[in-house]
Order: sequence, then structure tokens, then C-alpha cells
Amino acid sequence: MNRIDKKIDMTHGSGGRASAQLIDELFVKYFDNDWLRQSNDQASFDVPEGRMVISTDGHVVSPLFFPGGDIGSLSVHGTINDVAMSGARPLYLSAGFIIEEGFSHVDLERIVVSMADASKQAGVPIVTGDTKVVERGKGDGVFITTTGIGVVPHGIEISGDKARPGDVILVNGSIGDHGVAIMSSRENLEFETTIQSDSAALHDLVADMVIAAPDIHCLRDPTRGGLATTINELARQSGVGMVLEEEALPIKNQTAAACELLGLDPLYVANEGKLVCICPEAKADILLTTMKAHPLGGEAVVIGRVIEDEHGFVQMKTAFGGSRVVDWLSGEQLPRIC
Amino acid sequence: MNRIDKKIDMTHGSGGRASAQLIDELFVKYFDNDWLRQSNDQASFDVPEGRMVISTDGHVVSPLFFPGGDIGSLSVHGTINDVAMSGARPLYLSAGFIIEEGFSHVDLERIVVSMADASKQAGVPIVTGDTKVVERGKGDGVFITTTGIGVVPHGIEISGDKARPGDVILVNGSIGDHGVAIMSSRENLEFETTIQSDSAALHDLVADMVIAAPDIHCLRDPTRGGLATTINELARQSGVGMVLEEEALPIKNQTAAACELLGLDPLYVANEGKLVCICPEAKADILLTTMKAHPLGGEAVVIGRVIEDEHGFVQMKTAFGGSRVVDWLSGEQLPRIC
Repeated sequence: MNRIDKKIDMTHGSGGRASAQLIDELFVKYFDNDWLRQSNDQASFDVPEGRMVISTDGHVVSPLFFPGGDIGSLSVHGTINDVAMSGARPLYLSAGFIIEEGFSHVDLERIVVSMADASKQAGVPIVTGDTKVVERGKGDGVFITTTGIGVVPHGIEISGDKARPGDVILVNGSIGDHGVAIMSSRENLEFETTIQSDSAALHDLVADMVIAAPDIHCLRDPTRGGLATTINELARQSGVGMVLEEEALPIKNQTAAACELLGLDPLYVANEGKLVCICPEAKADILLTTMKAHPLGGEAVVIGRVIEDEHGFVQMKTAFGGSRVVDWLSGEQLPRIC
Repeated sequence: MNRIDKKIDMTHGSGGRASAQLIDELFVKYFDNDWLRQSNDQASFDVPEGRMVISTDGHVVSPLFFPGGDIGSLSVHGTINDVAMSGARPLYLSAGFIIEEGFSHVDLERIVVSMADASKQAGVPIVTGDTKVVERGKGDGVFITTTGIGVVPHGIEISGDKARPGDVILVNGSIGDHGVAIMSSRENLEFETTIQSDSAALHDLVADMVIAAPDIHCLRDPTRGGLATTINELARQSGVGMVLEEEALPIKNQTAAACELLGLDPLYVANEGKLVCICPEAKADILLTTMKAHPLGGEAVVIGRVIEDEHGFVQMKTAFGGSRVVDWLSGEQLPRIC
């Protein structure tokens, strides 16, 4: 059979010879590390005494390939970011694949290569994994669930419940780009320039930030549900209110235009390379300087403040001096965005 | 809407308010631990200096409920076992759900309760997770990917490449029960007594075994592909041959009869509560005694030996004194068995 025509079939999920071949010829080949070459059902490694974190994320993004990334790089970035949002240094990843029978071998290889590249660029190896195959019509191409573990530097206590009145809210750049890239590619929309997903691994930026200000209160990546939902989550967890400045929100013209066309509010659109940081007011300047010095934080800005409010409301101060409530995302704005 | 009629819809995967409610009312409620109550995107914990392991497994078993278990308990047992097969003590689990739109809320709750029970009984909490929803016809009810981490006791060096000629091969009980339970329930077969899956968490048995014999060479759970495939994997990894004794293989009459009816070879049928142990000959007796003293090892037996063979062949000595090659599973015998 021509290599280009090869399809995944049920035998690749059997646990037998075909599974072993797929693992050797694809996952071990591209992920390329000694843990996988050992062929055990688990990977082992040494850790120092201290605090660790674990995080997991399933990826079902549709389409599988989009401007600025694909499900492979996204599944690496997404979980690295969830680990990093505790202030931790991500150490290792695992990857579980659920593949639909008949899926193109060439597309699977392209996805695995993209994961391998993202993992190597981030310095976080994929050390163990699993592959299942489901019948045609019982899946959708490929789903990838990644899990990451990391170590938290001594003295770092970042958590969603630590925002305090007076704290400052920062973001590292423009919002809404990932969701708009996915929706544009789903709807076959064309703009003057292609809007790229912001998908990126943020752990290196976070490492700089926790050195500059070890007393950061909260970090979270505003993915599904967008910035509005993340800010609401943090307000609820911390039992405080938040006030955002509409004029300060960094939104690219291109993204704003696409949102208008698609009937979306960029505040609720997913990001994959952005973080919200809440810190004591005294640390806002040094954090802003640190973020701006990093390639992934060049557009960092202060977008609001934490206030007292036991009901956990989030408000937006509009450009005209008014104020409105920013609610959680309710309903489903963008299905299968990550 | 009547509670019994509630269905999962796309909003439950949106990351917004409906997702948060589902997490609170189902996952946090039943998994019931402080890590989940913290509502962060990751869970943190303290570890001592030493060696750790990570393992992951996707679960796509069909049907979701079967005699002796369901996808929930299976997804807990499966990953605990993969961690334990390194000799490690499992510490924490993560769980990623991919749910099909329209899936019954009652069935999801039943699965989550079963996971919670399995996790509590094993003493291994589910500390973080993720939920995605895909459109009707793009999934199949629910898929669950679990990841586990554990700590390896000092001095334990179990790995699939450590089998040596002269070593003894043990198994902790009857083989083929899980696969036959699934297939019987899939084909609506009825036997005199229902064949139950052997699904169980083996970490407690393993803890006893590594105390009795810290120099165990290999441990592996013969899941997909069955005992034959696991023995072949270990032979390949270690670069040795293996000889199994047909008469010694523990197979329940009921399972053997069902296999004959279904046209299956029990050697290739998946298990979910069994382990293969390869140890120095001098340790076989103490391990057998230790295993028999444990509720999950009552039927433990020696099933064969490791021999020199650089080609890694596995042979079976038959009841009549003959010998045949036991190959890897090739093709797909039992799709979606775990």
C-alpha cells in the first residue's frame, strides 16, 4: 500500500504486534527519549524533596490543524501552561491518544511531529503514553489527553483563592486570537492577513515572573470561556470583586473585526498563550517590566484591579466612564475550541 | 426537566457556568477531596526525595457497564496497576473525560460514583481532571483517560528488561476473565453463572511482594493482548526466551468454555486484575507464599521459566509433552476491551 494511503485500523489499538509497531515507528521515533525506548508501561525519574503539581487536559479541537498550530502542539502547550500556572517548572508529560479507525497515518504523523517539536522546544519530554483505537463514527479523527507534572520552587504559593482587594490584574498580551483562528478556519473565513492562534508554552515566562515577584497571588491561563470566565473564576475562588478597564484590554484590530463578523465577544473567546496574573500592587511594575522583556510578554498590560466584594462580581469600566457586569460564559459560544 | 432525563450537552464542555456546575455537582461531590475543592487547574502535593513514576491509560471500553465493573472502576484500576507494576506506591490520579453530547447524566453519575468508590477503596485520590464534550456521533458515550503518579521504594529496580535465564514466571490467578466478561456482555451471552471481570487494584498485593522480595525483576499486568502478548513483550525487552507450562496456566472452566464458544484463545484475552511476575529462582517460593496470603493472589502459581534465547521466542510446553511457539497477538481479537 502506498504510504500516503495508510490508515489507522482497529489492530493498532489491540495491544498486539500492530500496536507495538505504531508505538515504535511513530511515538518512540519522534518523541525520542530513553523513557519511551525502555518500553515499560510507566516512566520513572528522580525528584528532589518538595512540592509538585499535576494537571491534565483533554484536547478535542476541531479542525485538527489551524493557523498557528494543531492538536499536537496545542496538547503540549495546554498542559505545560496548566502546570506552570501554579508557578511550577514543568518536568514531564504523558500523552493518551484516542484515534478513530480510518484516520490518516500521514495526518497522525504530522500531529506527532508537531507534539515532538513543541515538547522539545519547551524542554518538557513526553515520557509515557497510551493509544486506543475506536471504530469509525465513534470518535473524530484523534483526541489527545496530556498530563503534566512539575516542581514548585520553594516559597511559591500561587493559587486561585489568593486575590486580595488592592491587587493588580495583568495580562501578557492580546486576547481572543486562538478562538478566532479556530473559528475562521472552521468557517473558511479569509481576512486580509490570517489570524494565528497564540498557542505557546508559557512556563519560561512564568519562571522569569516568579523570580521577579515570588509573591504573585494568582496565575491562570484564560482558555475555554475566555478572559471573562477566568476572571470570574478567580473572583469566586478568592471571594473578591474585580474591576476591568475596557480601554486597557489588548485586542488586535484583526481579531476585533473577526469577532464582530462572527458575532463573538472577544472577552469570552479562548486563548492558548495568555496568562492572567494577579499580584500585590507593589509588584505590578517589576512584573510588567519582566513580562515585557520576554518574547511572550511584549504586549503585557495592567487590565484592572481587585476590590472588596463578597459576591465575587466582575465589573467593566467602559470607555465612556460607565460600568457593566461581566458575567461568566453561559451557554456554549465556541464548541471544541481546545 | 426530570432528573432522570437530564443529558450532557455542549455547554457542559464550554468552560463556562455549565462546566463549573457539572464539576461541582458531580466530580467535586463524589471524588470529594481538598485538591478538587481548591478549584485550581492543577493539584499540588509534597513529595520526599526519590524516584517517582508516571503512567497514563485511555479507557474506551464498550459496553460502559459490564459484569464486575464499568469504565469508571476500570479507569482507576488500570492506571493504578500500571503505576504499581514498577513496584511503586501509587499516590494520586488525574482523570480526563471526553463525553458525547446527549450522554445520560444518570449514567455519568453512576460512572463517577464507581470511580470514586474504586479510588477510595484503593486509597489513591483523584486530585485533578478535565471535561470535554463532543457532538453527538463524534464520540461514544464517555472515554476516560487517567494518569497516575507514584513513589518507588528505595532499592526497587523493576523493569521489563531485567528477566534473566533461570528466572521463574508467576501469575496471581486465573486469566481471561475480563475479556470474556466484556465479550459475553457484548454478545448477550448467558452462562450458568455470570463471568465477572477480574478488574482490581493490585498495588496492595505488589507492596507485599516487593517487601518479600525487593529483587523482583519484572512485573507487568497482562491487559490488551493478554498473557501471551505480555510474555512476548518482556522476552523482547529482556532479550531472553520464555517457556510456559500449558498445564500450569490457571483458567476457570467457565472462562475456558466461553472462550471456546466465542472462538477466543484465553492466552490472548485481556485481564484487569492480574500480574505477571518474573523473579530469581531463589525468590519464587517466598513470593508464591506472599501472593497466596493476599486476597488478590490466592490462586497464584508458577507458569514457566526464562531461558536463553536471543531471538526472544516464547514457547509453550503442552500437556502431552510437545512444544509450540506462542506468538504476539496479531490482528485485533477483542476491540475496545479496556
